[in-house]
Formats: sequence, C-alpha cells, structure tokens
Amino acid sequence: MPEQALLEQVVDKVRPLLGQGKVADYIPALASVDPNKIGIAVTTIDGTTIGAGDYLEPFSIQSISKVFSLTMALTLYEENEIWSRVGKEPSGQSFNSLVQVELERGLPRNPFINAGALVISDLIQSRLGAPKHRMLESIRHLSGNQKLISDKVVANSEYEHSARNAAIAYLMKSFGNFNNDVDTVLRSYFHSCAIRMSCADLSKAMLYLANRGKNLTGKQLISPVQTRQMNALLATSGLYDGAGEFAYRVGMPGKSGVGGGIIAVIPGDMSVCVWSPELDLNGNSLAGTAALEEFCQRLGRSIF
Amino acid sequence: MPEQALLEQVVDKVRPLLGQGKVADYIPALASVDPNKIGIAVTTIDGTTIGAGDYLEPFSIQSISKVFSLTMALTLYEENEIWSRVGKEPSGQSFNSLVQVELERGLPRNPFINAGALVISDLIQSRLGAPKHRMLESIRHLSGNQKLISDKVVANSEYEHSARNAAIAYLMKSFGNFNNDVDTVLRSYFHSCAIRMSCADLSKAMLYLANRGKNLTGKQLISPVQTRQMNALLATSGLYDGAGEFAYRVGMPGKSGVGGGIIAVIPGDMSVCVWSPELDLNGNSLAGTAALEEFCQRLGRSIF
Amino acid sequence: MPEQALLEQVVDKVRPLLGQGKVADYIPALASVDPNKIGIAVTTIDGTTIGAGDYLEPFSIQSISKVFSLTMALTLYEENEIWSRVGKEPSGQSFNSLVQVELERGLPRNPFINAGALVISDLIQSRLGAPKHRMLESIRHLSGNQKLISDKVVANSEYEHSARNAAIAYLMKSFGNFNNDVDTVLRSYFHSCAIRMSCADLSKAMLYLANRGKNLTGKQLISPVQTRQMNALLATSGLYDGAGEFAYRVGMPGKSGVGGGIIAVIPGDMSVCVWSPELDLNGNSLAGTAALEEFCQRLGRSIF
Amino acid sequence: MPEQALLEQVVDKVRPLLGQGKVADYIPALASVDPNKIGIAVTTIDGTTIGAGDYLEPFSIQSISKVFSLTMALTLYEENEIWSRVGKEPSGQSFNSLVQVELERGLPRNPFINAGALVISDLIQSRLGAPKHRMLESIRHLSGNQKLISDKVVANSEYEHSARNAAIAYLMKSFGNFNNDVDTVLRSYFHSCAIRMSCADLSKAMLYLANRGKNLTGKQLISPVQTRQMNALLATSGLYDGAGEFAYRVGMPGKSGVGGGIIAVIPGDMSVCVWSPELDLNGNSLAGTAALEEFCQRLGRSIF
Repeated sequence: MPEQALLEQVVDKVRPLLGQGKVADYIPALASVDPNKIGIAVTTIDGTTIGAGDYLEPFSIQSISKVFSLTMALTLYEENEIWSRVGKEPSGQSFNSLVQVELERGLPRNPFINAGALVISDLIQSRLGAPKHRMLESIRHLSGNQKLISDKVVANSEYEHSARNAAIAYLMKSFGNFNNDVDTVLRSYFHSCAIRMSCADLSKAMLYLANRGKNLTGKQLISPVQTRQMNALLATSGLYDGAGEFAYRVGMPGKSGVGGGIIAVIPGDMSVCVWSPELDLNGNSLAGTAALEEFCQRLGRSIF
Repeated sequence: MPEQALLEQVVDKVRPLLGQGKVADYIPALASVDPNKIGIAVTTIDGTTIGAGDYLEPFSIQSISKVFSLTMALTLYEENEIWSRVGKEPSGQSFNSLVQVELERGLPRNPFINAGALVISDLIQSRLGAPKHRMLESIRHLSGNQKLISDKVVANSEYEHSARNAAIAYLMKSFGNFNNDVDTVLRSYFHSCAIRMSCADLSKAMLYLANRGKNLTGKQLISPVQTRQMNALLATSGLYDGAGEFAYRVGMPGKSGVGGGIIAVIPGDMSVCVWSPELDLNGNSLAGTAALEEFCQRLGRSIF
Repeated sequence: MPEQALLEQVVDKVRPLLGQGKVADYIPALASVDPNKIGIAVTTIDGTTIGAGDYLEPFSIQSISKVFSLTMALTLYEENEIWSRVGKEPSGQSFNSLVQVELERGLPRNPFINAGALVISDLIQSRLGAPKHRMLESIRHLSGNQKLISDKVVANSEYEHSARNAAIAYLMKSFGNFNNDVDTVLRSYFHSCAIRMSCADLSKAMLYLANRGKNLTGKQLISPVQTRQMNALLATSGLYDGAGEFAYRVGMPGKSGVGGGIIAVIPGDMSVCVWSPELDLNGNSLAGTAALEEFCQRLGRSIF
Repeated sequence: MPEQALLEQVVDKVRPLLGQGKVADYIPALASVDPNKIGIAVTTIDGTTIGAGDYLEPFSIQSISKVFSLTMALTLYEENEIWSRVGKEPSGQSFNSLVQVELERGLPRNPFINAGALVISDLIQSRLGAPKHRMLESIRHLSGNQKLISDKVVANSEYEHSARNAAIAYLMKSFGNFNNDVDTVLRSYFHSCAIRMSCADLSKAMLYLANRGKNLTGKQLISPVQTRQMNALLATSGLYDGAGEFAYRVGMPGKSGVGGGIIAVIPGDMSVCVWSPELDLNGNSLAGTAALEEFCQRLGRSIF
C-alpha cells in the first residue's frame, strides 16, 4: 500500500512538467483555471484516503462523470437494455466525432465517448424524475461529501457551446437511438459534467471500482461481475483516443476529463485520482498521466 | 492455480457451442480443418503445463504469430525505432482496413492489425538475414518443441490470396513507411502465420508474457517493463474489432488468430491457449472465447 | 422546338415503368401520394408552355426548392459571401450525410445537398424579415401562379422527422457555419420544400435558367453569367448521388426532389419539368428520369 | 469560330499568372519542365487547327491519356462489360484515394480517377496483345502525328514511384475487380501517361469528342451517343476534385493532366487544348484553367 511520502515524491517528480500542456479553453469558465495545480489522492479498500499536492481542491470533473452515469444506468436497467443501445469497443476516432455514429447507424462505440454518454443520459432521463438531483445525490453519497455542487456557470457555458453535442444527439435520434428531448438531456448531461470534486472526493467515490462494487460505506453498488466489466471498459475506452498509450504507460483502468482530472483503479487494492489542468494532445491531463505512470512504477503495480 | 479437472469442465461446458461459428474459408487450406475441435492448455509460471480436449493437436497459429514478431522486433530495435512506425491505439476498424492507414498517412494504429504487423515484418526483414528461419527457430525455442514447422501449403495459399495485404503494404510504401520489397516481406509474413502449434506449444511459448519476460527455460527474453507494455497492447488491441467485448467477458490480455487459436495471460500467474476452429463475426474463435470466459469465471481470476 | 405530340409519345413510352420505383415514405404525408402519376411540361424561351399527362396536377416540390433558395441568395448577397460558406463540388456522398461536413470542418460540398441548402436558408434568414412569405411570393411570381401554397401538413410532418437535418445544422453551427436559431431555419426550409406546384408551374418558373436569367415576364432575375454558373452547378451536383448517371443518360442540367419532380433545362431553348412519384435507388424519379432521357433522344438535343 | 487573334489575346491575358502555381514534382522527370510555358490550340469540326503561345511544344499528357484509354475500351467491349466494373459518378475524394474503393468494395467511382483508369487499363490488357503499342498507334492516328512517342524516362520514373497506384490495383484485385498482373498493367498505364503531345496534337486528337465521334479523317471512332456520354462523364468527373469549380468557371467538358495540359470541347463546334505546367491546389493547370475561362468568355460560348 502506498504511503504519504510516495505520493509527495510523485508530485515533486512531475511538477516540472507544468507549463508543457494546454488548459481546455473551449469554454471561458474552464479556461480561467489556475494551470499550476497538481494533486493526487489514493483510497485503499480499507477506506483510508491519503493525498499530496492540491488534492483537496475541487475541480470540474467533466467526463469523469461518465463513469457515474454508466454506473447509475446499470442500477436502473437490465444489461441488454443498455448494450443494445451502446457498444463496448474502442472508437478509434476523436471523442466527439459523428463519423462513426453515422457509419454505424446511430450506435455509439462505447459509453465513454460523448455519443455513448449522451445515450446513457437519455436512458437515465427516461427512468428518473429528477435526474440532475439524483445524480448529484448519488455522487455526494459515494464520496461521503454532502457539500458537492454542480457549477452553474460551467454548466451554462457548456450548454451555450453545445452545438456539437446537439448534433450528435439529433443524429442518434434520426436513427431511433435517442428518445427524450435533446435540450433536456443536454442540460442534465452538462449538470453532471460541471460537478466540482477534489482528488480526495473522487478517489473515495471511485472506491467501488477497486472493491468489487462495494462503496466507501460497504454498500454493494453494482455486482462484482459488473465492476470487473466496468474496469474492462475503462481499460479499453476510458482515455479517449489515448487508451492504448495510457495502458502502455500506466497500466490501470482509468477515465479522464478535460478539467484535468483522471481517476484510475488497481482492482482489489485502491482507487486513485490525479488532477492537473493542462492537457496533452489527446485531451488527457499531461502531468496527471505522468503522475499515474510514476505512481505505478514506484509502487511496482499494474494490472499487466 | 487451475487443476486438470477444471480444464475438463471448461471443455465440456463449451463443447455444445461447436457448430455455431464458421471456419475461416478465405483460403482452401484453412477451410478444410475439422470444425469439431476444442482444446485448452495452461502453463503456470512454475513451468507446469496441463491441458484438456484437443490440446496436443497442432493448428495454424495465423495472427498469433504477430505476438512473436513484435517480441522479436523488441529484441532487434530501440523502442522509438518501432513506435515511430506503428502506433499503440485500438484501430476501431476491421483488421485489414486501408481507410485508417490512408487517413493517418501510412502509420498503422497498432502492431496487431495486418498493417502494423506488416511494418513489424518489414523492420525484421531489414535487420535479419534469414527472417523466416530465425522466427521459426525462436518459436521452437520458446515452446521447447524443435519439431514445429511452417505449413507450406497454407503459406502458399495465403500468398496466392494476398492482394489485400499487398495493397496495405504498397499504401504504406507510398507514405514512406515500408522499406523492403513487398513480395519478400509478404512471404516471410505468411511463413510465420502458417506455423503449426498445439495449445500446449503455445501456452508454453507465451509463458514469458505471464512471467515478467522470462521464458520456459528461465531466460529473460524481454524486460519486465516491456512485458507489461506488451500485455497492455494485447489488452487494448489483441482481438481485432472485438477487444472491448473480450476484455468485458474474459478480462485477460490476449491474441487471436483465424486458425481458431487464442492465447491469453494472467500476468504473474499463467499463460493459456484455447483452440476451436469456428469463428464468431469478429473473426475470433467462438467456443475458444467462451472457454476463456468460463475458465476465468471458474478460477475467479481476471486482471480487472 | 418540341410539339405536343412528342410529349404525349414520351409519356406513353415511359408509362409502363410505373410500379418499378418506390414512393418516398419517410413521412406519411408524402407516402400517401398516388404512385401512378406521370406528367411533363416544357416552356420555351418564347414563353409558350405545353404539356402532357398529369402536367397540371400540383405535387410537393421538395428539393427542387433548393434552386429557388440559391437564386434568392444570389440576389441578396455578394458571390463571395455565399461561396465562402458552401462549396461547388459534387459530394460523392448521400444527400444527407454528415461525414463530409465533419471531415471538411463544417463546409458543405454544394448548395444542393441538405447541408448546403441549410446554409443557404441560414443566409436568407439573416437577411430577410419574413423568409417563408418572401420565398413563396417569389415562386408565385416566377411561375405566374398566385395561388401556389405551401402544404402545412407536409411541412409539419417534415419538421417532426427533422432530426437528421437538425444534426447537420448543429454540426455546422459547431464549426461556426450556421448563425441563426436551428429550429427557425428548419421551419423556413421545410416551408419551401412543402410548396405544391405542377409541372406547368415549375417549367414556367425555371425558364430563367434557360433564358440567360430572364424570367417569364422578361425581367432579369439573375445575370447571364450567374445563370450559366447555376446550370453548371446543377449539371455536376443537382441529382444527389446520381449526377453522373443523369448527365450520361439525359445530358441536361437538372434538379430532382423526393416528391418525384425533376426540372431540367436546355440553355438557350427551354425549361422542362417531369413528375412521377416513384423513385429509384438514388432518390430520383424513376419514370421521370426515363421521360427526360426519352425526350432528349427524340428531340436530338443535349448539352453534350 | 475563334480566330488567331483571339487565341493570342487569351495567352496574353493569362501570362501574368505564370509563377502563381506549382509544377508537379512527385517525379524528377516532371519537376524539371520549364514552368513559363503557356499554349492554346483549337481544332474546329471543319478540321482547321489554330494556336497561340507554346502550342506546338510537346509535353507529358499524363491523365489526359485516360480519355484515350476509355475510348479504346469502348471499342473493345460491350457497354455493360465496362460499367459493371467502374461507375459514372464524381468521386468526392482525392484522385488517388483508396478510401472510396474500399468502402464501395473495389468499384471505382469513375474512369477518370486513378482507380477507374487502372480498371480500364486492366480491361484493355485482357483484350489486346500489345496494349502499349496499340494505344500509341491509336493516338498517333487520332492526332495525325506519326512521330509521337512515350517518354521512357518519365514512364520509368512513374513506375519507380508507383506504390500508391500499386496499392489501388491490389485493393481492387482483393475485391475481384482486377484480373491481370498488377506490374504489367502499371507498365502499360504509365506508358500511356508518358506520351508527349503538343496542344495542336491534342486538340486534333480530341476532335471526335466535338464531332459526334468522327475523328480528324472523318472516321467514326465511337458512336454519337457514346460521344455524348463521354462528354457527360468528362463534365462531371474530368477535373479531379475540381469538376464543379471548372464547370462553374469554364463550362466545357474537359480533362486535365498533371503535366499541365487540359483538353476541353464544345460539342458540335471545336476541341481545345491548353498547356501550362504550373498547377493549382486541385492539380489542374492554373494558367490553363484561366485561359479556358477567358476563351469561353471572349467567345461567348459554353455548354451551359
């Protein structure tokens, strides 16, 4: 199990990388974040959380929310109701591409690209009365932090720049793979993306992925088999168009967000979250990826 | 560690699936194989090999040879000499597609699709005097079976139906990513694909992937880091367009061939090989995949 | 110049083809049309109109409206304001594909595929206060028929099935090539598509394309150069994915609609309109195309 | 009919454009041509040829040879034997793209992109004993110039850089749409591309396209209907990815080559050839296109 000192060493080691990436700037609310942040937190299956650097500072979780959404969908639907509407394969395309969705007649490749996450949001919308509220409540519960909020400025800003996601949703609707009002679902989707959490919050919230489906309080959120399957999907599709490189360098199932966060797990042992806002060319945190690589190497652990 | 009885149970469990897939028939030499075969072999890191069903019967390893080729390239070249010519990402396209190669200007997505494997063969051709001989010797050594041969009828038949692979090679050549004579490299490539091995041969030969790079005789073939990286690439790209589904169902890094073989590993523990000639729609052994799924489930093991 | 008898012969010749195509059925309002209709009308540059078959019966002009829209845009904007937002090349893709629009970063190939026509509608929306009214007035004036109307049932039905077109518009918006509210523009677009005209109405209205830009009343609508350019675009891009085949068989610049109408011109001589609701696999009127082929052959005329 | 003075004016008008394009440099033999050349020749259906500028200087006809090849195929095969193996539609892709050929399972879009021209060469190879000799003889006959030769240096240079074309041919072979030895057909193909002709030679040789299929000596080469169809295909697909723009600006069926030549016809009146080695971004002669535009404008002629 990692110790505090190891986390400090990891942060020290990658801090020189700050300045080499580029903060997401497609919306003003994200562009204004301080680029010089770097944090890491680890939660082990005994429930202990340790951290280093800016690991207590909240940031916009963005696409990391796709993990929570898929998990919620797994609790609301039978498996085949989900997997008949979204695939399980890496996309081989940019995270927001419409080409694949058109060529494969409205079926997104996996739940972690935008198209797939929008289908998952559409599924949740069909089943829940107040999906925004329920998703936030669920994430608060998972992290044990009742004060988590969704950043209204970020959510609104995303919505105002949502033409690409609207195009994806309407394209799927034209193939019969989107049932609710596009606008309503986009609002819910951006609400989840705009939730602010710290590395500590996220490593706690993701513990169920390391603990055969049991969350921080010991409650079985999804089954052990579902947990293993979720980790498999994260390993093959969790890092946009950089899943192969991430597996090669880091060797943990993981999910990144354009806010600079990355969560990752070593099944049976621990969940990890790193955060550093500057991104590499694939849209993944540059220093964050390096921190996870360093962490695995020093710990001598990997799933491979 | 698995016992003989468990392997027998796995074989019995999946035998009813025989008849549901389709033997590869793009060349006559493969089409004539008996479809009712099913075998499994496991080699643990203590060097023990056990098996069940037709695990001693040799079959055409086909694309499983791509693992041996990449391994040989790793022993001949610096890392950057390889990864500047082939990527590490899932392709999101059919295993023999030219679209991606054209759009990405001659750079194949990974070493396990045809385009990438041809680049690896081109690299080997540039460095070795007698690549066919050397590859066969290497595989004989890895499996501890000096009698292994490449099936001339299969190799010639592949060559006579090689227009698609020739197109891929020439396309890469047009982008400057193929240096040797296309015909010569294709001959070497098919020679390796046509090597005949049993499940027992293959599980032994692949032990280094489970044993941090050490082969059956304890010799360090590639480094522990390279082994971990190889397993990462197999997990994200080893099963053609079905890598996500395979990870989801089986949860082991693996590589399949159209001869019906699949190799897979649990790092630190064991290498496995299954064989059953009938393929599913992705070109992976139908009963073989089911056998691996059953094996992992009964053993309660997975990397996820 | 053609005579009445020739038109009758053309209609008789192609009537046996009725029953071989398929009426557009993507919206109920179009699916219910009588499939056994066939009409042809010709307007010569002296202003005379003759016809045969069901040439006085109004039908839904659908994509033929794209000719009127581009013409109106040419009267509202400078050339470069239009051609910086839409190209002049054949698309090589289905009329409603998003692939090309994504790959070419929001710039549609030409004004006669859906994406290009939506950009033209967006341009018109930016310049006119009441675009629906103005377009209808303009078409009434061109055809000399003040009673023309847009079919509300068809327009509403199109709108209710507009997900694909909405996806295209939002995709262009995401690239900065769509300025107005998507919903508003779609409403205008469908209003024009749903205008009902007969072959006689349409051959009269299109006379300006045959008469160097002068309409039926002798007024210069667009310049001779613009007219020649419009005909060039119709010849290369007017028939969806069947422009080459249409040029090969018919040899006239033309534009088709899924309502079964096709307009075509022999520059300097005449405008023609045929109508028959059953479509071929490219979405062009099956008997209508044959009628134009027969007409050109009997007349011994073609632009080639 | 144009007079000598008009041709001189056209040349004078476009000469200032020299220096704005880029000579084809993918093979050394083409890169060394003098860029400051500009010529134009016109042959009217009475058999008269006039010219201006460098209209008597021979250049490499390159893709203009595709017109001669298709014409020869039309004399050797039934229509359906040709059009079952190559389409009639604009490609919407770069002239040497493999994407379309793969997606449409080996069927090239039209006979004027490389893939289509290779299929035509394959057809000719199947029927003729000495296709290189026969093609040269035919072109000598058409132009009335027995001294025409194919430039061996250019042909060999093309062959040495033929990986892309080899890839296309092998891809079509993999779909069963290429019957002869790839190398042999490539040799014939490049032999025709490397034929050297002057503007005068080419305008004479192409007269049959303007004269309902009758060549300079009055012999019927192809039928009037075939001639009209050939012109239709040239209008929609003759200028690579710039067919729409060429129709818009020039308004004549035409075919360009990377040697800087463009042939064009006004059916019933005349054939024209321009030459200037510098190309625009679409690979068509920059000053040559401008010369044709100027020519049509001054003459007040166009097919539209």
